[in-house]
Order: sequence, then structure tokens, then C-alpha cells
Amino acid sequence: MNNDSFFTEIWTPEGSAFSLEIEEKLHEEQSEFQKIEIYRTRHWGNLMVLDGCYMVTDRDNFLYHEMMTHPVLFTHTNPRKVVVIGGGDCGALKEVLKHPNVTEAWQVEIDERVTRLSEQYFPDLCSSNSDPRAHFYFGDGIQWIKDAEPGSIDIIIVDSTDPVGPAEGLFNKAFFETCLRALGDNGILVQQSESPLFHSQTIIRDMIAEMRQAGFCHFQTLPFPQPIYPSGWWSCTMASKNVSVNEFRYDHAQEKVFATHYYNADLHRGAMALPEFMKRDLEQ
Amino acid sequence: MNNDSFFTEIWTPEGSAFSLEIEEKLHEEQSEFQKIEIYRTRHWGNLMVLDGCYMVTDRDNFLYHEMMTHPVLFTHTNPRKVVVIGGGDCGALKEVLKHPNVTEAWQVEIDERVTRLSEQYFPDLCSSNSDPRAHFYFGDGIQWIKDAEPGSIDIIIVDSTDPVGPAEGLFNKAFFETCLRALGDNGILVQQSESPLFHSQTIIRDMIAEMRQAGFCHFQTLPFPQPIYPSGWWSCTMASKNVSVNEFRYDHAQEKVFATHYYNADLHRGAMALPEFMKRDLEQ
Repeated sequence: MNNDSFFTEIWTPEGSAFSLEIEEKLHEEQSEFQKIEIYRTRHWGNLMVLDGCYMVTDRDNFLYHEMMTHPVLFTHTNPRKVVVIGGGDCGALKEVLKHPNVTEAWQVEIDERVTRLSEQYFPDLCSSNSDPRAHFYFGDGIQWIKDAEPGSIDIIIVDSTDPVGPAEGLFNKAFFETCLRALGDNGILVQQSESPLFHSQTIIRDMIAEMRQAGFCHFQTLPFPQPIYPSGWWSCTMASKNVSVNEFRYDHAQEKVFATHYYNADLHRGAMALPEFMKRDLEQ
Repeated sequence: MNNDSFFTEIWTPEGSAFSLEIEEKLHEEQSEFQKIEIYRTRHWGNLMVLDGCYMVTDRDNFLYHEMMTHPVLFTHTNPRKVVVIGGGDCGALKEVLKHPNVTEAWQVEIDERVTRLSEQYFPDLCSSNSDPRAHFYFGDGIQWIKDAEPGSIDIIIVDSTDPVGPAEGLFNKAFFETCLRALGDNGILVQQSESPLFHSQTIIRDMIAEMRQAGFCHFQTLPFPQPIYPSGWWSCTMASKNVSVNEFRYDHAQEKVFATHYYNADLHRGAMALPEFMKRDLEQ
């Protein structure tokens, strides 16, 4: 496409690409960890790009952020302490804080610049950052989980970039073992798990195998639409040692005391029904 | 994207675009109705493009074709005569013919060249074309439905292009009235209904209003992923006059005698759970 007014991300291994029409580049910097670009798009609000990869737009981030949080929070019987690893745009944190039973929510992001720029360019995602229950740590999430008191966390949400580069260490057995130790008996881990179409036989299956080797026993992958990510179709995967992740507090979800744009109780139940090919690939 | 090895469709009103890497242009012609291009892509098999718009690839058409057919066929109590309006690539017809209770399946496509090229370049989609229950008519679908014997059809599947140009007449009250007259008492219409993200407040809502004015009473929109279509997220909408389209033959779907790649009974039930914003927009 010979059109400089579009920002394009090419997904080389799949031979596909997605573009958004740009009105203005609002910011660009090389942080300690990655290249960060912020654009104002024509129809999708603001856009954040990390190392050339789409991260978040105003228009469609609700799909990802709601599905990374509300299913796991309504699956845990009583989530009080929740930790987001990554998630520097604060969108997951904001959704977590909608749950009144949460008493302590941490965002552990390696790159403080992502959060500072999000405060500036995505104020809606950061609208709960001053909630007294919100805590921020900028540093290595793997080490933070390692240092956490065993059994002290109810839910770990891994809201990371792709499993290459900085986030590679968030997709292996060693990391999942430290998560399991940090979680309480009824604790649940949820991890963004890439594209159902592209990665069911690779990243998703391999990740679940690593989780299993680390001691997790119950799994549930939840697909959801996400237009700006490769294939426009994304997923997260819940894992626990002791509690089922195929059941959830349906009545509480149905009577939730906060507004959502995508999530509801029936949609949560519906998302648990995997396509035929995923059932075959994942044997869930 | 300054890369001639990609075919790109720009979705101008939404300021977004999708591209697939091309290895070779296999065919191009201007038919009586539209420009038809066939490409061999690098990772998505063959691709058909009509008037510059993505129509079908080998890799992801199963999502669309399965969702346009199996939900409605398992919703009707006993579908015997099924008509596809459009659907010249024969993919919907192939899925319809998987149902053993179907005795007569028509494909009514305005552009015979689409079907002839599909036979050549998408042989898998055309693998049931010689089924003795399969019938083909190449001509105007609106007139064909008008001429059909009243009450003679169990299911009408409108597998059309976007509601501009040739397919515009497939989205209004006049067409839906002729559909209603052609359908039996328990008859069901299903129509491709564009993107949940882009069109819930426009095309989908307007189309349902036209269906309602034509005499249809029950509606169910089903969202599903479709990477090559705008936003990567698509939908179809079922409509009937007398029978519920929120219930279906779950047991039959669960014990279906044919293989699918996406569809299954639980996924069908799950797809009926609309996102919060769609429930608000459509008041279903």
C-alpha cells in the first residue's frame, strides 16, 4: 500500500498485515526497553505501538482488557489481591478495580515510560490509577513474582507483549512455577495467549504444556475478537492448580455492579466453548 | 506499506486496511457484474477478490461458511429445501449438503463466472457440486425468490457481498417480504450482516428494522471471527416469523454426523450471547 498516511504492522510469518490511517504522530521515543510510538488515528482514537507492534487503540482495547480481567475475576471465589504483570497502559488495572472485592491491585510493568505516556495519551485507561487500592511497581515482573510471599496472591494476570524479546521469559515453566508458588490455594493465573488461528498448535499448546509441567492442572482458553492484533482474533488462557476454571460465579457476573462494553455473564460462558479445531489442537 | 507483494483492501470509512502477501496473480477478468481477481497467497492458500474486496481464502473461509449454515440448519426443525442467494464460491452450499435431512439445495448466484473460477481455483469449496441434491441457477436472486412457490422453502441463506452495488437490493424490506412469502411456516432467513464493531448501529440495526417491517418477528445475530473481512470480526443474523431462533436442536448438533473445523453445538450456543454493546445497539 503506497500510502504514507497509514501505519502498518506486517505479521511476517503469516504473510498478512494490518494498517490504520494516521492523522498525526504524537510522540516517539526509544525507552530503555523498546521503541514507543503514539499516533492519533483517523477513526480509532489514539494508538500506541511498541517496537513496531500494535499495542492499544482507544477504539478496540475494551475487548482485550475486559476479557483479560472479568472472566478470571468472576472465576475466583473471592479475589482480593490481584497482580498484573505487564499491562503498562493501565487498561487491565482499570477493569480489575471495578470489582469491589479487590482490596489490592498491583501493576508490575518493566517500562515506566509506557505508563507515563499512557497517562498522557490514554487518560481513560488511566482513570483509576489514583484508586487507593492501586499500586505500581516499575521493574522486572519475573523477579517481583519470585520475591512475592508464597500463597499471597489471588490472581496473576500476565498482560504481556508477544513471547519474543522482553516477554519471552513469561511463557516458560520456570516463570509458571514462581507464579504457582505466589498464588494462594484457590489462585488463578491468566495469560494473554496469542491468536487462535495462528497459534493453537504452537504458542498456546506449548504454553499450556509448560504450565502443566509447572504444576497447574486446570485450563481454559477464551477466544475473543481483537481487530488490531494478528488475525483480528485473540485469546487468553486461565490456569489453576486446585479449582475449576470452567465454572464461574455466573450470578455475580450477571448482577455485576459496573458497566462493560463487551463482557457479560453469558458471553463469558459462551467464550468457554472452543471451536472444533482448537479442541483438537489443545485437547481441553 | 511500500510493498508490491501484498494485496491490500482499504476500508475507507473506518480508516483501516488488511493485506495478504501474494506469490502470484492467477487470474483477472471483468465479468458482466464485477472485477474478479484470483491470487495465490504465501500463507493463506488461494484468494478471491471481487471489485477490490476480499471474498474468500482457503485458510479462513471455514469460519464464515460454517457460521452461515450450521446454526440456521440446526435451528430449523427439519430443513429439507435450502436456498443460498449469492454464495457463488459454493462454500455455503457444501456445508448445507453435509446435513442429511436436506433433499434439495439451490445456489442462486448472479455471476456464473464466480462459480466457474471457484471450481478451478477453490476445488475444495466445490467438492459437493456434483451432489444430486445440488441445483444451480445463475441469475437474479431477487427475481428467483419472487418467482418461488409461496411457502416452499425451509431456509434462505443470503450469502452476499456488502450492501452496496449489486447486493444493495438484498438488504431492504421489499426483498425480505418476498423471502417471507417464499418461506414455509417454520422457515428461517439468515443473512450475512457485516461487522459487529463497525455496523451494529448502522447496517445490522437497519437490516433488522427492515426485516421487522417485512413481517419477521424473531431475530438472532451471531458474531464470529473472520480475519480477512473488515475488523476481522463478522456476523450473520437469523430471522423468522413463527419459530424461535434462540433455540436449536442442540442434541442433533452435538451428535452431528459430519466434521466441522469451527462449528459445534456449544459454540453455537455461545455465539448467541451478544456483547454488551451489541445488546444495547440491537435490543435483542
